[in-house]
Formats: sequence, C-alpha cells, structure tokens
Amino acid sequence: MDLIDEKHTKTMKPPDCREPSPPDVESLAPFFEPRGVAVIGASATPGKLGYGVVYNLLSHGYQGQIYPVNPHLDEVLGRRCYPDIASVPDPVDLAVIIIPAKAVPAVLRACGERGVRGVVALSGGFAETGPEGQRLQEELIRIIHDYNMRLVGPNCVGVMNLHSGLDTTFVGMRPPLGPIAFLSQSGAMGGAAIDWARGRGLGFSYFASLGNTADVTETDIMARLAHDEDTHVIALYIEGFHDGRAFMHTAREVTRTTPILALKVGGTEAGARAVSSHTASLAGSNEAYRAAFKQSGVVAVDTVSQLFGAAQALAYQPPPAGKSVAVLTNAGGPGAIASDALAQLGFELPMPDEAAQAALRAALGPSAQLVNPIDMLGGASSSEYEAASRILLQSSTYDAVIAILVPNSANDPAGVAEALARAASGANKPLYACFMGDVAVREGHKRLHEHRIPPYVFPESAAHALAAACEWQCRRTRARPQPTFPTQATWPARACEIRDDLLAQGRAALTESALHPLLEALDFPVARGELARDPSEAADITKTLGAPVALKIASPQLLHKSDVGGVRLNVKSPQAAAQAFGELVTPIIDAHPEAEIQGVFVQRMAEPGVEVIVGMRRDPTFGPLILVGAGGVYVEILKDVAMRVAPLASDDARDMIRETVVGRLLRGARGRPRADVEALVDLLLRVSDLACSWPELAEFEFNPVLVHPQGRGLTIVDARAILRGEHASR
Amino acid sequence: MDLIDEKHTKTMKPPDCREPSPPDVESLAPFFEPRGVAVIGASATPGKLGYGVVYNLLSHGYQGQIYPVNPHLDEVLGRRCYPDIASVPDPVDLAVIIIPAKAVPAVLRACGERGVRGVVALSGGFAETGPEGQRLQEELIRIIHDYNMRLVGPNCVGVMNLHSGLDTTFVGMRPPLGPIAFLSQSGAMGGAAIDWARGRGLGFSYFASLGNTADVTETDIMARLAHDEDTHVIALYIEGFHDGRAFMHTAREVTRTTPILALKVGGTEAGARAVSSHTASLAGSNEAYRAAFKQSGVVAVDTVSQLFGAAQALAYQPPPAGKSVAVLTNAGGPGAIASDALAQLGFELPMPDEAAQAALRAALGPSAQLVNPIDMLGGASSSEYEAASRILLQSSTYDAVIAILVPNSANDPAGVAEALARAASGANKPLYACFMGDVAVREGHKRLHEHRIPPYVFPESAAHALAAACEWQCRRTRARPQPTFPTQATWPARACEIRDDLLAQGRAALTESALHPLLEALDFPVARGELARDPSEAADITKTLGAPVALKIASPQLLHKSDVGGVRLNVKSPQAAAQAFGELVTPIIDAHPEAEIQGVFVQRMAEPGVEVIVGMRRDPTFGPLILVGAGGVYVEILKDVAMRVAPLASDDARDMIRETVVGRLLRGARGRPRADVEALVDLLLRVSDLACSWPELAEFEFNPVLVHPQGRGLTIVDARAILRGEHASR
Repeated sequence: MDLIDEKHTKTMKPPDCREPSPPDVESLAPFFEPRGVAVIGASATPGKLGYGVVYNLLSHGYQGQIYPVNPHLDEVLGRRCYPDIASVPDPVDLAVIIIPAKAVPAVLRACGERGVRGVVALSGGFAETGPEGQRLQEELIRIIHDYNMRLVGPNCVGVMNLHSGLDTTFVGMRPPLGPIAFLSQSGAMGGAAIDWARGRGLGFSYFASLGNTADVTETDIMARLAHDEDTHVIALYIEGFHDGRAFMHTAREVTRTTPILALKVGGTEAGARAVSSHTASLAGSNEAYRAAFKQSGVVAVDTVSQLFGAAQALAYQPPPAGKSVAVLTNAGGPGAIASDALAQLGFELPMPDEAAQAALRAALGPSAQLVNPIDMLGGASSSEYEAASRILLQSSTYDAVIAILVPNSANDPAGVAEALARAASGANKPLYACFMGDVAVREGHKRLHEHRIPPYVFPESAAHALAAACEWQCRRTRARPQPTFPTQATWPARACEIRDDLLAQGRAALTESALHPLLEALDFPVARGELARDPSEAADITKTLGAPVALKIASPQLLHKSDVGGVRLNVKSPQAAAQAFGELVTPIIDAHPEAEIQGVFVQRMAEPGVEVIVGMRRDPTFGPLILVGAGGVYVEILKDVAMRVAPLASDDARDMIRETVVGRLLRGARGRPRADVEALVDLLLRVSDLACSWPELAEFEFNPVLVHPQGRGLTIVDARAILRGEHASR
Repeated sequence: MDLIDEKHTKTMKPPDCREPSPPDVESLAPFFEPRGVAVIGASATPGKLGYGVVYNLLSHGYQGQIYPVNPHLDEVLGRRCYPDIASVPDPVDLAVIIIPAKAVPAVLRACGERGVRGVVALSGGFAETGPEGQRLQEELIRIIHDYNMRLVGPNCVGVMNLHSGLDTTFVGMRPPLGPIAFLSQSGAMGGAAIDWARGRGLGFSYFASLGNTADVTETDIMARLAHDEDTHVIALYIEGFHDGRAFMHTAREVTRTTPILALKVGGTEAGARAVSSHTASLAGSNEAYRAAFKQSGVVAVDTVSQLFGAAQALAYQPPPAGKSVAVLTNAGGPGAIASDALAQLGFELPMPDEAAQAALRAALGPSAQLVNPIDMLGGASSSEYEAASRILLQSSTYDAVIAILVPNSANDPAGVAEALARAASGANKPLYACFMGDVAVREGHKRLHEHRIPPYVFPESAAHALAAACEWQCRRTRARPQPTFPTQATWPARACEIRDDLLAQGRAALTESALHPLLEALDFPVARGELARDPSEAADITKTLGAPVALKIASPQLLHKSDVGGVRLNVKSPQAAAQAFGELVTPIIDAHPEAEIQGVFVQRMAEPGVEVIVGMRRDPTFGPLILVGAGGVYVEILKDVAMRVAPLASDDARDMIRETVVGRLLRGARGRPRADVEALVDLLLRVSDLACSWPELAEFEFNPVLVHPQGRGLTIVDARAILRGEHASR
C-alpha cells in the first residue's frame, strides 16, 4: 500500500508539526466595518466593474464614506471623484482596487502611504496566470508587509458584510439578510449560491470570495467571524487550503462557539484536475481533509444543498442533545422516507411514552397513529400540528422533532407554519419542518423562514441537516485538548545514532532489516529478528531466536515482499531455515535481476493476533497523517482505514480505531476474545510522535501489526519506510 | 448469521418459485380511455369529494361521456344527474365510486349488472381499517370476479390519464402534460409530487395511486403503460408489493422498451414500522427489493428528487452508450463538483482528443481551459455554449455531455438554453444542463424543459440522473434470459428418501450431521465426515477419514458452533481425536445444560481456500433469496454479501460474486492465485435449484465454503438449515 503521493513530495515540502500562530483578527476590521471606502478604478459607465462596486456600496445601506477614485472623472453616481488615493480625505480605512494588474503595485504603495489599513484587490492577472503573475503577486505581499496593511485578493470577488451594508463586490444581486456567513473559494459558486439563497429566502450575514488569498485567507475571516454577533454559522466552499494546520488551529477555537460547515470539492482524481486547472490552489486528498475537519470540529457535507440545509438548521435552532427523534406527519409515505433516512444516519425513533401518548390521543383523536412517525393522517389541522409538536417537544423521550406536511385540501401550509412557530417558541430543543411540494407550500416556507424554523422540501434533506447539527453538537461537547508537540530531543541517544547512520547512507527506501535496530532502540514492540546473508547464517539465527521462524526477502527494491513470493512462515528448524533460504532467494534473483538482495530477514514467529496496518504519510496540506486499518490480505481490498492529522490526542487514536471495521474485530466479535486495543492506542500515539519528531521520515508503515488478546500487547511483524529530502535518493 | 426473519415466516407463506401469469392488459382499457364515466356519489357541493371528481372530469379535456349519479340530485355542475347506475345510458365503461364503505358492495354489483368494465373505488373503510374492513374488501373481490370487472382501489386517490384528460381523482391540482408516468403507493406522496412537478415544469403522462390494490396493482398498470405512446418512462414510489414475483416478471418485459425507476421506502426497521402502520402492505427487506430490481432491469433511486431527476433524463434524452462524459462549464467550482460526483459514480472524464481540442480552441479562444471539465471561464456566451457543446456531442470520445452554467452579468441563461437546444438537435447522445441558482435561471430552466433538455440546479443531481440513465441502458442491453424453474422431480431417489426422513422427524433446525447425507446424495462437494457419539468412535472415524480432522459439536440448539467453543481444527491423530472429544463436549454440557448434544461431527480437514458464505432465506415478497459473501470471521462484521431472487441465471451468479469484496479476493488480488470462481457460480446455481425444488426448506447456509485455487473446485465445510411448515417445530 503506497501511502504517499510522489507528485506532491517532489514538488513541495509538506508542513511540519509546529504550532501555527493565531490570525491577527484586529487587523481585519477594515473588511467588516470600515469608516470610509475608496474605489480605485471607479467608473461612471453602467456595466463596468468599477461602476458596479460604487453602485453596490451606495445601494445597500452602507453608512460610512464612499470615495470614487479616477483621474479622468469628476463624479461617479453623484459622488465626488478623486484623482488619486493621496487626495482622498479622512476617514479611509479600506480601498477597493479594480485596475489592470501591472498598475496595482504602485497604487497599493500609494494606499500604504495614505494610511489605508485594508485593500480588496479585485483585479486579476496575478498568480492564477503563471510565473510572471506570481512575481507580481509576490510584489504585492512585500508592499503590504512594508506598510502593515491587509490584502484581500487579488483576483477575487470581494466581501459583503450584509449587516453593515458594506459591499466591495460588483455582484449584481444580494442575498437576504440573515445569520449565515458564506465563504466561497470559487467566485462563480458564490454567485450561484447567492442567487439560490435569494430564491429560497435564505439569509446571509457575510459573504467573501477571496481569490488568490495572497494575504487574508478564509482562516483569517473565520477567526474574525467568530466574534461577529450577526453570524450564527459559517458555511465554507473549499477547493484547497494553502495552510491546513493554520485552518485546523483556528477552526478548533471557532467551533467552540460557532458551527463551521464545509463542502470540500476536488477530492477525486477527476475533481482534482478541475480544481488545479482553475486556481493556483493545491488540492489535498479528501481523506486528509475529512480527518482535519473531524479533529477541528468542522462538519463536512457532500453537496451544496446539504451545506445550506445544515446551515439553516444550525443558524435557526439549537442543536439536538442526542439522537432520539420524533417525526410528526400528515402522510405515511414521507414519514417512512424520513424514518429510513434518519435510521441510516444513526438516529433512533422511539415510541412516545405513555404520558405523551395520552396527551397526543387527547389532542389528535382516535384515528391518529401514535407510533413514530406519529401519523395524524390527511385531515390534520394547524391546531393539531401545534398541539402535537408541543407535546413532542416537551417529552423527555426526544431530542428533536421533525414536522412533515403534505399539502392537501384539508390544510393550510401557512397556518401550519404559524402553528409550528407557536409550539417551538420557548422550546429548548430543535423543531425542523418539511413541507413537501412547491407551489402549494411557498407561502408556508416563507413563514417558516420568518420564524426561524428551518424549512425543507424533502424529508431526507431534513434528516441530513439534523445529522449535521448533531455532529457539531457532539464534536463541540467533547473536550478537544490541543495535543502536545513532541520533539526529537526526547529520543534516546542510541536511537539518534542509528537514525543519523541511516540518513548518512543516503537511501530512500528502508527495509525491515535496516529499520529494525532503530525501532528496537525506540522501544517499539517488534518481532525479534536478524538479517541472514547465507543459508548457514539463517540456521544460526534460527537457533538463537528459537523456532518457528519466518523468513523474508530483504531488498530495498522489493518492499511488497509477499507479492514477489519473498515470505516463508512457520519454518520449524535451523536446518529447514537453511534450506528455505535458497528456495526463497533463487527464484527472486531470477525474476528480479535488477533488485539488490541484501539477504533474508529471519524473524521469530509472533503469537497470533488481529492483523492491523498502522502507517504515516505526509500530506502536502496538513503534514503527517496517521493511518490505522485492517491489515493482511484485506488491506487493499477493504480499504478499511481511518486517518488523523498528527499530533494525535489519545481520543483521536480511539476514534480512529472505532471508525474501522477491524475495530469491531478488536473489540471482540462473535465469541472472539477482546484484543489489546489500549496497546494499539499507545502504538498510534508513539507513531504520531515519531512522525512529528523525525521530519526526514516521509512515509512508513507497519503491516501487519498483530494485536494480541487484551493485556498481551501487540507485535510489529513487518515495517518499511521512505526517507526524503537531501538525505535520500530513491 | 440468521438470514430469516421469524415474524414473516410465522405470519405468511412466502411465494414459491412458480412462473407468474402475465397481467391482462386489455381489461385495463377503462382506466385509460373509457368512452363514458359514471361518478357514483356525485355531489353539487364544492369542497365535497364527489364534487371534486366531477369537476376534474369536466375540467381537463376529457372527451367521453360524464354521468353524475346521486338519487337526491337532478344536476351536478350543469350535467344531468342519474338516480342510479342502472339508469345511466351508454356508453359507460368506468364507474368512480365515492360512497360509504358499507354501501359499496351493492353498488359494485349494480355496476356489474349494468355492464361497467372498470371501477375506481375511492371510498375508504376496507382492509386498511382491520379485519371487518378486510372482509368487506374480500366481498368486493368476489363481486368483480362474478362480473369479470376490474377494480382500482378501494381507499385510493385514483388515476389520471393526462393525455386523454381522464381524471378520476379529487386532487385539486394537476401536473403539466409530459412523458413521465408516476405510480405512487402513497396518495399523499402523489399529491406532493404533483405539486413539486408543477413548480418545476415537470410533465406527467399518467398518474395512479391505487390504495389497497385489492385487484389492479401497480404491476398491472406498468404492463399497460408499456403500450402507451405518451409514456416514455415509469417512475414508481413503492412501500411494498404483495406479489414481488409478478412485479419482477412484468418489469423484465417492460424494461426492454420503457425505463422503470423505483424509489422504495420502508427498508430500515424504523421505516418499516411507518409503512406497516400506514397501509396493509408488507415491507420486505430493502436487500430483497434491490436484488429484484437488478434482476428485472429496474433502476433503484434513493430520493424523491433523484426519482424525478432521472425520470426527466430518460424521458427527454437518449441514454448514454457508455461511461465517458464531457463536462462543459463557465465556472471551475461547479465543474469540480460535477467531476467529483461523476467519478464517484464510476464515470470517466477523458481529455478532448486533438481534433476536438483544435475545434474548441477555434470556437472558444485562447483562455478556455481545454481539459475536462472544459472551462470556458466566466465570460462564456450563448454562441460559445452552442459551438462547444456541438463539438463535444460530435466527438467520439464522449457518451454524454453535461453543460453547466453559473449566471453572471456576461450571460443570458434563456439564451444559453436555446443555444444548447440547437446543439442537441440531431445529436444521438444525451446533453443535460445544470443551470445553478434560482431566480436568475428560472426562465432558462423553463426553456430547457420546452426543448427536452433535462435541467438541474446542482451538478451532483445531473450526475445522479446520468448514472441512472446509464444503468438502465446497461441492464437493457444485457440479455436477461428468463431462468428455468427446477422441480423436485430432478432429485435422485436416494436424496428424496433422506429428505422424507428428515421431514418425518419433525425437526426445525438441521445440524451438519443431519444434513450431510442429503448433501452427499445431491452431490454437493462437502468435506467428508461422520457423527461420533463417544471418544472411541471419534478415534475410529479419524482413522477411516485420515488425519488431520476437525471436530465440531453436533446439537440442534447450538448452530453457531464456534461461538460456544464447539470447534477443534487440525486434530492430528485418532488418539488426539478421542481426547479432544471429551475436552470439547464437557464444558459445553456444563455451559448449555438445555442443549441436546448428539455427539461430535468428525470431518476431514479441507484444503485451504478463500472463505465464502453461501445461503438462502425465503423473503415474504419475493420468495427464495440466494446470498453469497465473505465467510469466516468477517461475515457479520463486513456484511459483504450480494443477493438475488431464485431461480438464478448464471449471469446473476457471476454478478453477485462481482458485487462482493470477497469477489476481488477470489479473482486473485495482490499476488494470490485466482480461486475457482466457476465452481462457486455452479454452487450458487445448484443452491438456487435446491431452494426452488424444496419448498419446506425455509433457510440454510453453507459457512464457510472454501473456494480452492482455479481448477480445484471448492469444499463445503459447514452447513445448517431450518425447515418450516407442518413438518417442523422449532
């Protein structure tokens, strides 16, 4: 199993494990509440972008000063136009630049001279266009450092603070006002989402599309939004981060108070191509992103509609405290769809308890079906919806209620929306509504929005939103200690010597026999063994270790030993070992004349156990990524692995094991003994330490690790590693 | 692994393997194009259901005669009202009945006397209400048999033939006219779907919600719709079939020409409860439905929006001939989302070939990114969309094209829709459109509908629709021979004797030792063995078979032998076998005093092989269901199984193996030898025969079956079975 992606390691250095410095939130104030905004490149011609920006600033309630800047104009949209930024009066905290790329550095410098604190560079023609643009972009970075300014962009759509009326974009439409901050790494996606939001009455507090993120990143904006009273939830559309560890660090803090939802695209090979040809951003593997999200409290979603469905749920209602849900409906079919979807997402739908049943019976009459879903049948009225949802919200059996309505001649969707709002008012648990259909339920949806009850069209959408809310709640309420960062200083002297020797040899691929002394010096529980260079050495080593032994080919070119017939197990005597040496080596030499055969590694057979793989690769975005999963023949076939970004906390290690199928075997399934899970947790933590404390170690894996029955530890039966950097040549 | 669901086997007899008789399509004519319709229980009061039905018949272009029937009225909505059905003049092919349940039998009989050929009984109060209603419903069935009539309902919404204008429902809204027939087992879901469809401009040809399906079923209507020129695709919302085999038989025929899409709900336990409390219908397991759909060419979908998304795709455009897709976009983000979704669904996105690249470059200019997705960037115009999609549709590289548009100030969605329509006209492969947003793309979506280009809002929806179309095409083009139905007549005499003996013993659970003689007589490749009742018999049998042997506890109460410590493998001599007998039996007797211990089954150790489980259970809806999957310790943990309804064709058996993870091991992964897959195919076919030819066999499983390397067959190492019916008592 090759954990490493060669392309990435060759082209960039992955981040190491150091602690990132937190974003400077204060310096971002100009992108939220500037006292005055200059538009450099303002235009008086409708249709031009420099016109659109001034128009948007004037049109949406922004209360600060607005200064069009253009040496050829006296006035733009009735405002006095200034010849340059130097002549703009106070206060001017922010400049929006919309001029050709080549002219941007000089203007940026002039902004610095004028005391402008923040700049939004809408202009394109920078890193996204190639090496020359990259150089121009680097010049911008030097300038803002000189003047201690912050820069959004270049090549961006800009930002909207819907609550202060600040709009630095030229986007021709605006979403309704609301509690959702939306950060989109694609400007086009941002525009489509705004249009979709206004069609559905979904309200935004803040919108940003930051383009090339030469300076200010989504991570910075997220950190600032955590202090924004008007933002209740942050929704991210992500193509790839430049600094994954900074994102994780900030997200860990932000998600203590504000939910973050993330839609990451570009994970599959085809998707990654689309992303890398679109922006200068580098797409990491989906697995690394998923792991990083889990560790930092971010909830991952799969589709745009799930992103906003979940955002509404978290913005409008408290998260559920647990996984017990009541479904209230006026039709069995949608109730069944909701039940199916909820059950698949791990929710339970218990029956109402006796008291709730009695109350529901009194409210709904004899024909209602008081199981769960609670089916009020087609004739359900607004007052029945109100009474029943109040009873369910008050019942201690449930953590959340989903009310489904199918429009028919007996009901009034708008009236039911009002009824649900009355029931939800004062409740301390979430109520979501699913009004199915389109034309007949439009007014109902509108009312639900007004009353902050998240409205869905399909039962499965409500179920997915509830799952996201539940996941956030679960992540938030679990302690997430910042794991400690180990250093090489903790290595024993003997291990440091061996390591330096290995690095000095300049090999990239390390075989089992090369690694073994180091692993023993670091006190990893490896199966004892030694390298035999001829049959008689094999016999001697077998005598010393005690039979039975395993024999394995040792060659840096043949890391997948069993694939080339390079493994013999259960060899029962020194004599047999001597004979097996020749039988093993001869056909391999014939078949792989190019391979350097160092000999045969003779190793004591380990006590049986559950076969597990433990590995590490360095992700270009997040750094060392630790992996655990089913080992042996099932590794490639099952792909049963869980990953986390190092350093790991012990909770991370336990979560990883729990996520895998082999984790169920380890916990003792079908009469099998429970395996030593704690020993595996310990191994994962030590592997995390090893990855963090040895940056030249590019990739390694232990496969198989045999996890013995509880209390008896585990044995690393095989190991291989790849070194990188100037020390290694593959 | 308990394959059987006790609740079902105790309450109903699953269907056997006989060939179902095809639906009588001719007799359904009254529900499609009746020359005259009587409405029995017509009302002149708006709001009453009997008014709504007459109103709908009058309002939607129905050209036949309409006869309100009500003894208390002279006129309804300007039409003469008749006192009873006897006095209604010719022609009258169909009667719609909307009167109290108790009065229905007499009126139904009067319809029969009058020569009415079809009846739609909207009235509720039948099987859905309990035993008394069930009896009333049975009376209806007797009456229609007496008069050779067909009955839709009772307790139903009715049918709409949108093209003939026939509408027997009281639903207050109608979908637009179009190519999709929608059959909904839930009336409420039907109403919500109609509302949703009219909001989105989705057109229906036929709608039916058949209620209790006392006579006419969805299967019957499907068979008739296959001959309906106006129906291009059939969409089903299913809670459960009464006769799964009849559905399969008809669907196999219909899907040769007309795609069928099915959304089945009620598969999970919680969902099943919602369904069974809602209708009299019985929810089978989702797995059985999935298997039946696959075998009969039906495409299963997961959500309502996927159901109609796929229906549009198949109704509007030809299905793709393969899995190679071009994505054309004016924005990278949505392109990446489409790529991710398509890749996950198994599609490929190859680069344009040289000729196509040159043509695209000429049409789109220097800045367009000519990989795949083909990104025309934000400024793409209608004529660029037209040129590029024409080039891609003509390129032999692609089987389908998805054109994505994000609205911005540079484009006109309605114009792009027209442009795409021009490009698609005359193309022999599908073009789908994804116009993202809401308000800004409404007109564009409308135009796409008009030009029969399926419009989606999200890229992943377009991808799912394409996957469904591709799946239908793939199923349709594969030969699906009706498998032959085996009978007990083909059993050897010796096997029949043993079987009759087993039945005569009256046991429900059959242990390995009881089953072995039968399996040998039927020539199944079992590992040879014999029952030992004491240690010395164990030694003797070991001598006869030859060591090494396996010892396994034989007790009808202890079917999961390894769970109770009842298995010893690799016993190497007769003496060791005698000793192991005692060591095995004594602790089990202590731990399970209630179990009847018949002795120890001594069995020759089989040659190694890949561990597989092969089993059968009888599904209440579809009859015998054959299962194959990963055996051994992974059975319960992986749940890596594939299922099909018996009888199996050999293609079914191969498909099953291919669907499993263990199938990849069998084909030889990571340097392992290929296993004897053909021997496993043969075993599955013989297991299918066994299930079909022995109806008293309720459930059985072989676990593990060891599949040896290619050419060396397989060995059934363990077997157990459950008998049912009057022969068995558990």
